[in-house]
Amino acid sequence: MADFTPKTQGPFADIAPALDQLTQQVLFGDVWERPELSKRDRSLVTVAALVAQYRINELPFHLQFAQQNGVTRDELVELITHLAFYAGWPAASTAVGIARKVFAEGT
Amino acid sequence: MADFTPKTQGPFADIAPALDQLTQQVLFGDVWERPELSKRDRSLVTVAALVAQYRINELPFHLQFAQQNGVTRDELVELITHLAFYAGWPAASTAVGIARKVFAEGT
Amino acid sequence: MADFTPKTQGPFADIAPALDQLTQQVLFGDVWERPELSKRDRSLVTVAALVAQYRINELPFHLQFAQQNGVTRDELVELITHLAFYAGWPAASTAVGIARKVFAEGT
Amino acid sequence: MADFTPKTQGPFADIAPALDQLTQQVLFGDVWERPELSKRDRSLVTVAALVAQYRINELPFHLQFAQQNGVTRDELVELITHLAFYAGWPAASTAVGIARKVFAEGT
Amino acid sequence: MADFTPKTQGPFADIAPALDQLTQQVLFGDVWERPELSKRDRSLVTVAALVAQYRINELPFHLQFAQQNGVTRDELVELITHLAFYAGWPAASTAVGIARKVFAEGT
Amino acid sequence: MADFTPKTQGPFADIAPALDQLTQQVLFGDVWERPELSKRDRSLVTVAALVAQYRINELPFHLQFAQQNGVTRDELVELITHLAFYAGWPAASTAVGIARKVFAEGT
Repeated sequence: MADFTPKTQGPFADIAPALDQLTQQVLFGDVWERPELSKRDRSLVTVAALVAQYRINELPFHLQFAQQNGVTRDELVELITHLAFYAGWPAASTAVGIARKVFAEGT
Repeated sequence: MADFTPKTQGPFADIAPALDQLTQQVLFGDVWERPELSKRDRSLVTVAALVAQYRINELPFHLQFAQQNGVTRDELVELITHLAFYAGWPAASTAVGIARKVFAEGT
Repeated sequence: MADFTPKTQGPFADIAPALDQLTQQVLFGDVWERPELSKRDRSLVTVAALVAQYRINELPFHLQFAQQNGVTRDELVELITHLAFYAGWPAASTAVGIARKVFAEGT
Repeated sequence: MADFTPKTQGPFADIAPALDQLTQQVLFGDVWERPELSKRDRSLVTVAALVAQYRINELPFHLQFAQQNGVTRDELVELITHLAFYAGWPAASTAVGIARKVFAEGT
Repeated sequence: MADFTPKTQGPFADIAPALDQLTQQVLFGDVWERPELSKRDRSLVTVAALVAQYRINELPFHLQFAQQNGVTRDELVELITHLAFYAGWPAASTAVGIARKVFAEGT
Repeated sequence: MADFTPKTQGPFADIAPALDQLTQQVLFGDVWERPELSKRDRSLVTVAALVAQYRINELPFHLQFAQQNGVTRDELVELITHLAFYAGWPAASTAVGIARKVFAEGT
């Protein structure tokens, strides 16, 4: 990561600038933009991974981002219901609670 | 689960008949058939949950089933590449190894 | 899940009615009622799975429910102590903190 | 762990003698012997933690050990069926496969 | 754990005295003191395990303890950046958030 | 990832070329080379994350790579012993088994 790379201004820039650059340039700048999978599909897959791994802090952003990428609220709820079987009821229960909050905030 | 329920003949029927019934009647008979999410979407979500959780024994079936449900091999590989970032390189590395084998078997 | 099925009124009914039905009718209505394992044993097993998976949001309910099903507080603490070895000290540490709170609330 | 402690002869003794001592003296010598929870209960809890965490290599021993501690095969199968809901179908599916093998070996 | 063992006064002493004794006498009294691995190395390894497992409640203490054991803040941030690849971006994202708070509290 | 990027020849090149490029160019080409953390420290942290997450397929390579980066076998065994407490005995037990094999192969 050469010094002349323009600094990124993402959410980790303050204390983890290298992670911020990797996030902005590689993850969002490259991977999410690859045409091999649509953004809607990438959001389905990302939310599924977060629900299954109980990543409670990252779910709010990605439940919103999924909606921007064309996943409806009904589809998000159905995804969580489906994952009750593939990741266990507790993972689904926590995801429903987070979705309820995110949806109520109108975002 | 009343005794008069016809016995199911799925993969758990021999030693876990109740789990087999739940699998055939509730999971595959009901949940997978719900129209709120397409089968292709359900497969994306299921494979994502399996990759993220390192469920090595269940991945082969669902990599095949996903193809039956309309997910292409290229999309499955891209899903795994995407999840390298959301579940870690080791989860992606193991999933690539399993996908290589499943694809080579022509299934 | 046919439309004429009476709607359930559990904790997910507001935004995830299908998950609520599955929870009330299949999980609590059927599985928890099966005589093959006592409710006390089911609670031991459920709490163990929650502690081991760090399911922090679902532990409070099941620590209370376990007591209703005949598991004593001393047994719950010993279960957590035992699981320090089988799921790691961090899982036990978090479970002790949750148990302390649940017990203090007199529930 | 002073040098004069008599060496243990457990399964890790060859390359991890300190872990072996901790296993034999603390885990099996002390924790499993504490009267606060019966050995049958400890086995239920241990097997539950292994199933939920997909600890495939440690399940065979503990499925056998649970039977020695008074858990029947039917109860073990029911425990796995119950955990399909609390740890996900994939965890239960793998546990059924391991149980089938362990039971078939007559152990 | 014989009755004449002096009671420990650690963080679990109030409701889980046996776990407290094991923590103070075995984990901190013995394992952390073994010369086979330096305390700095043990902290690197412990923080890595906590980040990878998303043990959000135990990370604050160990991010502080790691600094006492000679790991710098820059090294902790780099460890988290490295683990974005080995445990996934969500684990790293949450760890950065906790580190930001711990560092800001001047501890 | 533009087409004119020279193709990499790593272990995923055959069926997942984009993941292979990310692995060779970003993970090994950039992250592992960053001076903010020594390679020995990166190996300690990587092996810890693999042990804690039960990444059984990736452990053999990283137990070897750690030795190339200056971690001794005794230190690897002690790391596993330490992690018995932070990730649970089953994770340590499986890691000991893999280490035994890797060490016996003289690598």
